[in-house]
Amino acid sequence: MRNNLQVRLIARPVGMPRAEDFRIEEASVPEVSEGELLVQVRYISLDPAMRGWMDDRPSYLPPVGLGQVMRATAIGEVLQSRSTLFKAGDCVMGHLGVQTVAVVRAQAVRRVDTTLAPIDVHIGLLSTAGLTAYFGLLDTGQPLAGETVVVSGAAGAVGSVVGQIARIKGCRAVGVAGGSDKCTFLTDTLGYDRAVDYKADDFKLQLAGACANGIDVFFDNVGNPVLDLALRYINLRARIVLCGAISQYNSTGKVDGPQNYIALIVKRAMMKGLIVFDYESRYAEATAQLAAWWRSGSVVYRADVTQGIERFHEALLRLFAGKTKGKAVLQV
Amino acid sequence: MRNNLQVRLIARPVGMPRAEDFRIEEASVPEVSEGELLVQVRYISLDPAMRGWMDDRPSYLPPVGLGQVMRATAIGEVLQSRSTLFKAGDCVMGHLGVQTVAVVRAQAVRRVDTTLAPIDVHIGLLSTAGLTAYFGLLDTGQPLAGETVVVSGAAGAVGSVVGQIARIKGCRAVGVAGGSDKCTFLTDTLGYDRAVDYKADDFKLQLAGACANGIDVFFDNVGNPVLDLALRYINLRARIVLCGAISQYNSTGKVDGPQNYIALIVKRAMMKGLIVFDYESRYAEATAQLAAWWRSGSVVYRADVTQGIERFHEALLRLFAGKTKGKAVLQV
Repeated sequence: MRNNLQVRLIARPVGMPRAEDFRIEEASVPEVSEGELLVQVRYISLDPAMRGWMDDRPSYLPPVGLGQVMRATAIGEVLQSRSTLFKAGDCVMGHLGVQTVAVVRAQAVRRVDTTLAPIDVHIGLLSTAGLTAYFGLLDTGQPLAGETVVVSGAAGAVGSVVGQIARIKGCRAVGVAGGSDKCTFLTDTLGYDRAVDYKADDFKLQLAGACANGIDVFFDNVGNPVLDLALRYINLRARIVLCGAISQYNSTGKVDGPQNYIALIVKRAMMKGLIVFDYESRYAEATAQLAAWWRSGSVVYRADVTQGIERFHEALLRLFAGKTKGKAVLQV
Repeated sequence: MRNNLQVRLIARPVGMPRAEDFRIEEASVPEVSEGELLVQVRYISLDPAMRGWMDDRPSYLPPVGLGQVMRATAIGEVLQSRSTLFKAGDCVMGHLGVQTVAVVRAQAVRRVDTTLAPIDVHIGLLSTAGLTAYFGLLDTGQPLAGETVVVSGAAGAVGSVVGQIARIKGCRAVGVAGGSDKCTFLTDTLGYDRAVDYKADDFKLQLAGACANGIDVFFDNVGNPVLDLALRYINLRARIVLCGAISQYNSTGKVDGPQNYIALIVKRAMMKGLIVFDYESRYAEATAQLAAWWRSGSVVYRADVTQGIERFHEALLRLFAGKTKGKAVLQV
């Protein structure tokens, strides 16, 4: 009997999650029932959305129950299959949780095609983050060649892909990130046309300068104060893609709402929220396209990898502290 | 030579406009040049948007210049025409300004078809207010039969029409207004299914009760605090039509932004601004439809009429104080 190292949520965080909100425990692996798979987890995706799942309030997914294994998108290898959908040795992705071994319903996971890209690229670029970038920018943002696309959290898992797709579509990509190191990453590694450092004293001036022709698409991963500032510069019929608000997720005070939302009236602009799960029927199309771009080198993928499931909390804090560049991943 | 009584903007208001920000003066009527019309103004539309036009900042229309006649949509009768487009006796509507007589380019106004409805219905229902309700609800809001449509400023010029169109489309219409008198107006005169009084102590409970099935379309004329509260109750894929923010127009402090905007992500909802001028090519269609509804009695029209151009400032304050029911109009 193989043992399973699990991270369970044992208290609801107030503000930033503390180590004490989780318990690491070794459990035995349950029997695999008909229709289920036993999966060896390889990579776990660390996502800002995890913070919302820890709260006890209704959202697009139910809260993680207290005492339950922390929910996470992960990728792994099928060790044993009691389903006709998969066989041992197949790679699958889904909500496997923060644990080393998962028993899941075969219908709840999807196949990972390792001929498209290796699994470490799947977990970051061809999973939630890349798909969110793809559908958020192309479907909600509707960018046209020549337009200016501004991305907040541009060095993050989603943002690092949004800018590259914007460039492929002939747009001018402006990335907002914190610190000169990340800004260099945006322009030199990811190919953003301009990087703006929100920690710089002259941030507002930098952004105004980088958006001299206004903003046509603003892809927001962060929330205020960048959202409010971007609203000042939106062009007529601009599209604001609301993907996340990482600046607000650990806030214990009031959320800081966008005061400049009235610009949406003046500019007949649109602000629309996005949850990638709604696009499940089109995942295959997007995955194939992203993988093709990655293989041709038009999209580069960078991961920020932490080794070891017992470092989950530490890796999560790095993510919320804005210390990661590219996709934050936990390697099992 | 006939004289012209005019209201000119002579100072930029800070907060609520004061009487001293305007000057009433009698001017002589200029010569009518080729391509122009001399128009006897009959009804002047009083609109919340006027407040924005008084500010010296770029918007969807240039600011009214200091010393200039205050901009207003108005309706009048052609006294003299030097254009082939109109003849004396025709009725026209356009930016005639707050004055008794206007000289305007014939191409800048549109014909008023008095066989559809009398001119006092044109200035209120078949002008900016009614058209804004029509395009805002139907084009941006996309209401489906059985859905719940919530309208803020529901007793106002736009809101009083939105609820009635929502009912025609088979929706449940919930109106938010201030005071029991207005709430009675909503249900008894306009046919709203439910009226919610934002001045009542139990306003939040009232709104929650009226929206037990959630909100599918929120048509916002007001801004916070109603906007934030409505965001709490939006359904999946809700549409928020941003038409105005009258609660914020005379504010000298910070605009109160919607803290609950993150609900747009969770609910994959959309918030979109609207300026009716964008729909000019479809005004004829909308005017004919609104007039047909009015003639058949499916849409009732109520005006709040002030007599005399010299009472412009007083009438404007009534509007901003929320004292008007239906369309605020100045009769010349």
